[in-house]
Amino acid sequence: MGSLDPTPPRTVTPADVDPTKRRYAVIGTGAIGGYYGAQLAAAGHAVHFVARSDLDVVGREGLRVDSPGGDLLLRPASVVGSPAEVPPVDVVLVTAKTSTTVPIADLLGPLARAGAAVVLMQNGLGIEDAAAAALPGVTLVGAMCFMCSNRVGPGHIRHLDYGAVTIGEHAADEHAGAGITPTITAFADDLTAAGVAARPIPNLAAGRWKKLVWNIAYNGLSVVLDAQTDELMTQPATRALVVELMGEVAGGAAACGHPIDDSFIDEMIATTDAMAPYKTSMKLDAEAGRPLEIDAIYRAPVEAARAAGFTMTRTETILTQLEFIDARNRSRR
Amino acid sequence: MGSLDPTPPRTVTPADVDPTKRRYAVIGTGAIGGYYGAQLAAAGHAVHFVARSDLDVVGREGLRVDSPGGDLLLRPASVVGSPAEVPPVDVVLVTAKTSTTVPIADLLGPLARAGAAVVLMQNGLGIEDAAAAALPGVTLVGAMCFMCSNRVGPGHIRHLDYGAVTIGEHAADEHAGAGITPTITAFADDLTAAGVAARPIPNLAAGRWKKLVWNIAYNGLSVVLDAQTDELMTQPATRALVVELMGEVAGGAAACGHPIDDSFIDEMIATTDAMAPYKTSMKLDAEAGRPLEIDAIYRAPVEAARAAGFTMTRTETILTQLEFIDARNRSRR
Repeated sequence: MGSLDPTPPRTVTPADVDPTKRRYAVIGTGAIGGYYGAQLAAAGHAVHFVARSDLDVVGREGLRVDSPGGDLLLRPASVVGSPAEVPPVDVVLVTAKTSTTVPIADLLGPLARAGAAVVLMQNGLGIEDAAAAALPGVTLVGAMCFMCSNRVGPGHIRHLDYGAVTIGEHAADEHAGAGITPTITAFADDLTAAGVAARPIPNLAAGRWKKLVWNIAYNGLSVVLDAQTDELMTQPATRALVVELMGEVAGGAAACGHPIDDSFIDEMIATTDAMAPYKTSMKLDAEAGRPLEIDAIYRAPVEAARAAGFTMTRTETILTQLEFIDARNRSRR
Repeated sequence: MGSLDPTPPRTVTPADVDPTKRRYAVIGTGAIGGYYGAQLAAAGHAVHFVARSDLDVVGREGLRVDSPGGDLLLRPASVVGSPAEVPPVDVVLVTAKTSTTVPIADLLGPLARAGAAVVLMQNGLGIEDAAAAALPGVTLVGAMCFMCSNRVGPGHIRHLDYGAVTIGEHAADEHAGAGITPTITAFADDLTAAGVAARPIPNLAAGRWKKLVWNIAYNGLSVVLDAQTDELMTQPATRALVVELMGEVAGGAAACGHPIDDSFIDEMIATTDAMAPYKTSMKLDAEAGRPLEIDAIYRAPVEAARAAGFTMTRTETILTQLEFIDARNRSRR
């Protein structure tokens, strides 16, 4: 772990900003926004953060990112509490949870209307459709982050493993897809130059389904069974269920016109076996009593698959259990 | 509740035994054995109990049964720690958990060889087949208890609601069934005379499947979701899942040649709605860190249905989750 490394973290300050590089705003300073925002800042991009609970800490002490790739201490170009306070940028990364009750247009404030591309670095299906309806005329991108990272405290991110990003532009016709557009190529190039493996893909919906293979298999079971990934993989019964859930996602994806190779499921299993014991983001939400991202990660794909004639029965069972747990959590708040 | 009733409990002692009535032995002094054994004793039967952890308390203070039908304090004909100490009887009621690791022949000791009929008052499928293999030549009966009763302390049973018993004799040919035999008629008559609604049925396997409708729907979810029956019924999502699980049991039963009417599912739902909030027996086992009755209640029906060409997908998902929880409980003991 980076935090055990005696080397002091590399410090990045506004003096490191290269004014010729594209400017970013990041909505959220958590596991995703904090990590990728810090990598872009370390590569010379001006990165402005919109924070909520971590606003004061990050403003005062900066953002700490521990990572096997090297620890960073980032003093950002700016940290503000409202998107209205962010100067004009080229790209906005939305890394808030899909379970936030703040409408996307309010999250972005004037940033989108000022011409920035909007990248949803979130999990789930159909989230760009909802954003497109709320933000007509805005260039919308979805980014799928295959990474293990947790917010371990205020302004403190621990990146554990992986980090590759797959990037697709939203298209009104999800089957045709938007293709490899200049917007996603530019974003992928920025990430790659910042040391993050990034890949533009021509069809966002296909990428969203692929990301669900892991999320549907692990997020729900980790909450329902109070388990980390390694426990689910060690027990033969849950390991088999994980594979079956992945198969259901592939079935739903295929029914929706986005087939997924069996080899991708094998790859997700091998990747998880190789991972350090990991608490999923939904498990962390459950432990913190936060709302669970059920709609984007479970309900939308189950309903899309069902509308296309495929029933994800095991996934539905877990969706039901999550609804029960989420409702109980809400009633206890 | 009986325990709130100011009337003192009716005391039943060995002096109340009518020597012309059939003699019973009851293996177990828990929620099932304690309740039905006490009712039979109160009706004049000699009832001998084989107890484990409650042996001393029941021997010293008797068995307390609180019930809306009237509280009882039973000082049994005998309470012993081993079946070898029980005098000859006509019927042995086996009320130990199916998850006990003691083989049935050891549980019964010489009682079965002495000619007693053996009644398995347990949940699950296939348990009489296993017992028949271990006890050749013994008359084997299965009894399904539709009742809410909990052991609330050593030698202390709280009967909450219901209590009807369905009784079938085991047959080597489960499809043909044993019919309405003299053994089950006599046992049903004894229960009825003791104030317990009892009904002999011609096909035990059909009765076992019907009992699973409730057990599969509620036992597993109550453990996985840490919930009582009323919570599962109040949440629309889990309520719908309960109905779907009941439908899967009916599907498995039909595939195995024992169709269940939809009206029976309606009846189970209505019965549970009318019940006081109830912790299932599996939930109590989980809370006490005891082994869960997974094999008899979940694995056997899932495998029987699958062998007959019907997949109980939601039930399998919950079975897998229970296996995970049970294995973790065992590793923590």
